[in-house]
Amino acid sequence: MKFASLRKECYEANMELPKLGLVIYTFGNVSCIDRKKGVFAIKPSGVDYDKLTPEDIVIVGLDGRIVDGKLRPSSDTNTHVELYKAFPSVGGIVHTHSTFAVAWAQAARAVPLYGTTHADHLAADIPCTEFMADDRIRNDYETETGLQIIDCFKKHKLKASEIPMALVAGHGPFTWGATAAKAVYHARVLEELCKMAYITELVNPKVPRLKDSLIQKHYNRKHGKDAYYGQN
Amino acid sequence: MKFASLRKECYEANMELPKLGLVIYTFGNVSCIDRKKGVFAIKPSGVDYDKLTPEDIVIVGLDGRIVDGKLRPSSDTNTHVELYKAFPSVGGIVHTHSTFAVAWAQAARAVPLYGTTHADHLAADIPCTEFMADDRIRNDYETETGLQIIDCFKKHKLKASEIPMALVAGHGPFTWGATAAKAVYHARVLEELCKMAYITELVNPKVPRLKDSLIQKHYNRKHGKDAYYGQN
Amino acid sequence: MKFASLRKECYEANMELPKLGLVIYTFGNVSCIDRKKGVFAIKPSGVDYDKLTPEDIVIVGLDGRIVDGKLRPSSDTNTHVELYKAFPSVGGIVHTHSTFAVAWAQAARAVPLYGTTHADHLAADIPCTEFMADDRIRNDYETETGLQIIDCFKKHKLKASEIPMALVAGHGPFTWGATAAKAVYHARVLEELCKMAYITELVNPKVPRLKDSLIQKHYNRKHGKDAYYGQN
Amino acid sequence: MKFASLRKECYEANMELPKLGLVIYTFGNVSCIDRKKGVFAIKPSGVDYDKLTPEDIVIVGLDGRIVDGKLRPSSDTNTHVELYKAFPSVGGIVHTHSTFAVAWAQAARAVPLYGTTHADHLAADIPCTEFMADDRIRNDYETETGLQIIDCFKKHKLKASEIPMALVAGHGPFTWGATAAKAVYHARVLEELCKMAYITELVNPKVPRLKDSLIQKHYNRKHGKDAYYGQN
Repeated sequence: MKFASLRKECYEANMELPKLGLVIYTFGNVSCIDRKKGVFAIKPSGVDYDKLTPEDIVIVGLDGRIVDGKLRPSSDTNTHVELYKAFPSVGGIVHTHSTFAVAWAQAARAVPLYGTTHADHLAADIPCTEFMADDRIRNDYETETGLQIIDCFKKHKLKASEIPMALVAGHGPFTWGATAAKAVYHARVLEELCKMAYITELVNPKVPRLKDSLIQKHYNRKHGKDAYYGQN
Repeated sequence: MKFASLRKECYEANMELPKLGLVIYTFGNVSCIDRKKGVFAIKPSGVDYDKLTPEDIVIVGLDGRIVDGKLRPSSDTNTHVELYKAFPSVGGIVHTHSTFAVAWAQAARAVPLYGTTHADHLAADIPCTEFMADDRIRNDYETETGLQIIDCFKKHKLKASEIPMALVAGHGPFTWGATAAKAVYHARVLEELCKMAYITELVNPKVPRLKDSLIQKHYNRKHGKDAYYGQN
Repeated sequence: MKFASLRKECYEANMELPKLGLVIYTFGNVSCIDRKKGVFAIKPSGVDYDKLTPEDIVIVGLDGRIVDGKLRPSSDTNTHVELYKAFPSVGGIVHTHSTFAVAWAQAARAVPLYGTTHADHLAADIPCTEFMADDRIRNDYETETGLQIIDCFKKHKLKASEIPMALVAGHGPFTWGATAAKAVYHARVLEELCKMAYITELVNPKVPRLKDSLIQKHYNRKHGKDAYYGQN
Repeated sequence: MKFASLRKECYEANMELPKLGLVIYTFGNVSCIDRKKGVFAIKPSGVDYDKLTPEDIVIVGLDGRIVDGKLRPSSDTNTHVELYKAFPSVGGIVHTHSTFAVAWAQAARAVPLYGTTHADHLAADIPCTEFMADDRIRNDYETETGLQIIDCFKKHKLKASEIPMALVAGHGPFTWGATAAKAVYHARVLEELCKMAYITELVNPKVPRLKDSLIQKHYNRKHGKDAYYGQN
């Protein structure tokens, strides 16, 4: 098997999605990139997780063309292409239709930062794109989906290395990370943050956003040069 | 065993319902039809899923009479009869009392199309029938339940081949598809769409319906001659 | 082991509660009665389900005194005594602190009959008692809990043979049936009805109660001389 | 292995958290103290539960310094230190980011005592601290988190021996008990109480707090010299 380790990383990360309750049927995909070779591995389109094998994983170039593999890649492949090109720190990307993240995306709202569980992972609201304009929909839709996220990050001056997740309005979540496993981790965390924020607003409709001093404290416990969480 | 493959298809589809969390106890039934022979296979009435065997499945004609089988068929059999007669593209039908779909049916609301997860499966709100009139209730109730769905589709000019699901007001969901397995798939998807729409409205009470251009784009990615999702 | 079959029935019904997700830790109890011998079997107080054995089950008389057993019976024993004395058709009783049923009990609201899932089991709202008066609390509290339920049934002219469940305001659910297994079935159904009604009201705050003609139709499909659901 | 039994108690209690659905990934920690030796055992920082071994557990003194162990202790260690120093009856402490407890903490609301499930465990609302002042955040944040809880208990005249849980505003829950296992029990109960109170308020926005006579009755059934719940 060519690209064996890249395919294996991609396969294993994909198989985490149903285990974590983030997808039903074929509702999701994970990719991971080999920056040196300029190719990424991605789930084939519409294949059930319980039938997926490492051999089924498709290898794609940054021009969106198949480099190796017998199956058609995920229909979202061009979204992954745009994100890999725009965000050089990203090593893996996940797309799911997980329940609470989709609900916030459908509600077209950024998820407010209400607590330290959120601030442990990112020091900003979880961004949500605009609804896509009709001319973009008529264009290459999946490429435009990636560009919507990138535009949103530019507009709000966000760094993909610091904000590892986004909601696409009316659609659902994309998450990323240094590796495919880390991107899956962010997909699971995002779903939890969306559920917590939902309950929080129902418990207290006037809940304030967490104050900046607490946000910075928690974010910096886990990230950056003064981090003191974990073993490294 | 007569009608062995039809019974087996029906049995296996029925057994998916408790695994998918769509039924407790005996709250549901699946049928599948052999159009050439003009008979369909359906779950027997009130039999627990963990005691069900392929032999227990009842074979029924399109007049609602038992063709083969030792047990009484589902009390909802006549609803299936009407749907098979009115919707010639349908090969399998599912009825459940899954939690979120029942809640929308009890609320007597069509489920608004809020996102692409919904549009990937149908390009319209999930229809909900009227409450049944008293004279119809006094009539053959299960036959009338089927007619309620058919009337609803006529009134709103919906095609059963494009809209594989309906809610019966005050009651619960029916779904269908080309096969029993596909009908079960739609039952699971319906439950998820109902849960997502419920959360969406609580996150944003003023949420707009997804715009048509996005609906058509997503529906056509997966359906029709220009579909490009999956491996075929 | 004395009263072996009664103890076994009681043990097995108790063990269903954690499997069905109706209890955590020791939050619940099931009893079943032998009307001829005038004794009932009940879970011992505060014993974890994973350590429970049939021998641990306590045999109690209708005066509330232990007839056989080494352990102290459930602290709710006297509630069971009152219900068995007042409701002669009852063969088994369940008390849980299941999440949605407790929430409705805390909200001190009868659960409105919103759909056929409810009407398949009872043709009335799920009754909720008054909050207990202070003099009754100072009295034998568990006996008074049973009397609260009985008073509620008298006041609303309900029959325990037709309404197999009640909520005690501020506390939680009691359910019953011809056997312990049937009482457990009603505990699971009650939890589902409470969850469905909760979601229904959030989906449509102005949802109407199901009309009587539909209620009677569904109740009579499953109960009484003209029932045609199931195999008997 | 030094401190073998303390490490084992701590390890086993930590391993309960993912089984009970109270943590995902590394979101939580349990400690337990040996009061005679003046040391406590605590989970190492950022280690996955499925890789955790008893040997990984860190032994820490009441000055917060490592006494034995190869790994860095939980970043929340100093919070545990303060609680052990202020609350001499406490033998074990748990911190989680369980969903409903975090939502109430983010909503910065004490959880009202709505029912007997709550009163069985504590006879007061579940307290919630103030948001931490900025000068305290700049100080030793984890020490200050413990002090916030202690201040809250002083202000409301609560006893840690009677109220085994607290919410830290904008952050999440801490629970405790005579042993680590008992502290885990309280973490699970807290999550259930938070879920029940959330649903209760949505079912009845005007729900009253449970009256004191019922609170005292239930609390005293399980606690104090006249308790009659359980086998002792």
